[in-house]
Amino acid sequence: MRLARIGDTGGERPAVWDGATWRDLTQLTDDIDAAFIATGLTRTRDALSAGSLPELDTVGRFGPPLTGIGKIVCIGLNYRDHAEETGAAEPAEPVVFMKAPDTVVGPEDQVLIPRASAKTDWEVELGVVIGAPARYLDGPRDAAAHIAGYVLSHDVSEREFQIERGGQWDKGKNCETFNPLGPWLVTADEVADPQGLGMRLWVNGELRQNGSTKNMIFDVGHVVWYLSQFMVLRPGDVINTGTPAGVALGRTDHPYLREGDVVELEIDGLGRQRQHFGQA
Amino acid sequence: MRLARIGDTGGERPAVWDGATWRDLTQLTDDIDAAFIATGLTRTRDALSAGSLPELDTVGRFGPPLTGIGKIVCIGLNYRDHAEETGAAEPAEPVVFMKAPDTVVGPEDQVLIPRASAKTDWEVELGVVIGAPARYLDGPRDAAAHIAGYVLSHDVSEREFQIERGGQWDKGKNCETFNPLGPWLVTADEVADPQGLGMRLWVNGELRQNGSTKNMIFDVGHVVWYLSQFMVLRPGDVINTGTPAGVALGRTDHPYLREGDVVELEIDGLGRQRQHFGQA
Repeated sequence: MRLARIGDTGGERPAVWDGATWRDLTQLTDDIDAAFIATGLTRTRDALSAGSLPELDTVGRFGPPLTGIGKIVCIGLNYRDHAEETGAAEPAEPVVFMKAPDTVVGPEDQVLIPRASAKTDWEVELGVVIGAPARYLDGPRDAAAHIAGYVLSHDVSEREFQIERGGQWDKGKNCETFNPLGPWLVTADEVADPQGLGMRLWVNGELRQNGSTKNMIFDVGHVVWYLSQFMVLRPGDVINTGTPAGVALGRTDHPYLREGDVVELEIDGLGRQRQHFGQA
Repeated sequence: MRLARIGDTGGERPAVWDGATWRDLTQLTDDIDAAFIATGLTRTRDALSAGSLPELDTVGRFGPPLTGIGKIVCIGLNYRDHAEETGAAEPAEPVVFMKAPDTVVGPEDQVLIPRASAKTDWEVELGVVIGAPARYLDGPRDAAAHIAGYVLSHDVSEREFQIERGGQWDKGKNCETFNPLGPWLVTADEVADPQGLGMRLWVNGELRQNGSTKNMIFDVGHVVWYLSQFMVLRPGDVINTGTPAGVALGRTDHPYLREGDVVELEIDGLGRQRQHFGQA
């Protein structure tokens, strides 16, 4: 299933795609939040099969496809070509940092370049949405049972804040509007191989990233298992699994984003985003 | 005012201290959450003055004094003596990392040592609770208007995960139960000088940390102003402002915590915590 939240900011309605049109999920749930992710997918599938869901009146803006996210855990340097382009060694185990859920915006919402920023950068990423609590999993093979689905995630990053301002990457990852998410969440049963998804990103129409999740150093199962040794993953948590090569940081001309730039990105089957970059 | 959440886990009732007893706030709010922190303090003060609040039936366990925390932003190496004991240079600007809100437990709840942990450590900290959105503040003097109050916070840390496992500190800061908070939130009007608070921590009765917030490198106003240049601080967000010297990492004998250890901590006016450490 594809799940989405459609409507103006703060007034999004939960919706599900029936293959031809968006159906209103309001009779099943107030919203697509952690509780719904944990317990509502089966009854949504049933209602969809039964044809009992009304068509959504209007399909305008897509919001982030889930709300009430508990935490966003991010994996750094998880593609060989990206580690190489940034001059970093290939990590021996996953590099972990955090993004606060209040950085999340819809897939076509404006992203704001921070006031003191000279190095705002892009990162197309596969987002993993947790569906059941994961705590000290025995191995990567156990991960699948804890994954609700996948989502296109834009891990916008400010490189000076991240790397040159004393210490930890989080400083360049948590700026306002820095995590466009969506347009929709695809349930795990419809993603045959999460390690076989092409992913692309354009800036002002020019292709900048052109990768595949097959090039992850630590695959989704490994990442979920690994994180569960250090923290509890809960329904509605999101994991940003890293970005392939092609970011501004990794190019010799460092073409960081400026006000007025347009970034588009997509992952096979997970839809497409388009953001106008504004100035905070 | 002192605000608390009292009762069994998941069933805490909001309460306010009248100077002699805890009063039930249920008639004013379902809980002490971000919305209440943003808008409910004045009406609580009024109800307290009017004497209209019933006494709380039973005062058992204290939960964390606020729920629905959006993010916990932490400042590292913010006391000269702590930076020195860890062998780190004094930072030129605040070091920032994140703790997920689901690490929060009550002040006397059990803390779990992670399964693979050999270096679980303690950190008594002054927690700042945000009361109004803070975004690009003009200067440290503007911070006060955005602070709802203060809370005792235990920034439990796993040093091997934090420092020796590849990359970013967050890996050793987000383990289950790693942020005991409370027992109560003291509103800012009752903390005459947040830079004049003594803070102490004992392990199995032995005094390990004995510091004062006057020794912060970056004071509370500076921290709030500084963070607001990189992210939006919102009502109900918490800032852990760093710990003074005396942690296990900083001692030559490295007496890291073991199952069965008891940690007690306090900050002047903010109450006291006591945790039994168990094994995950």
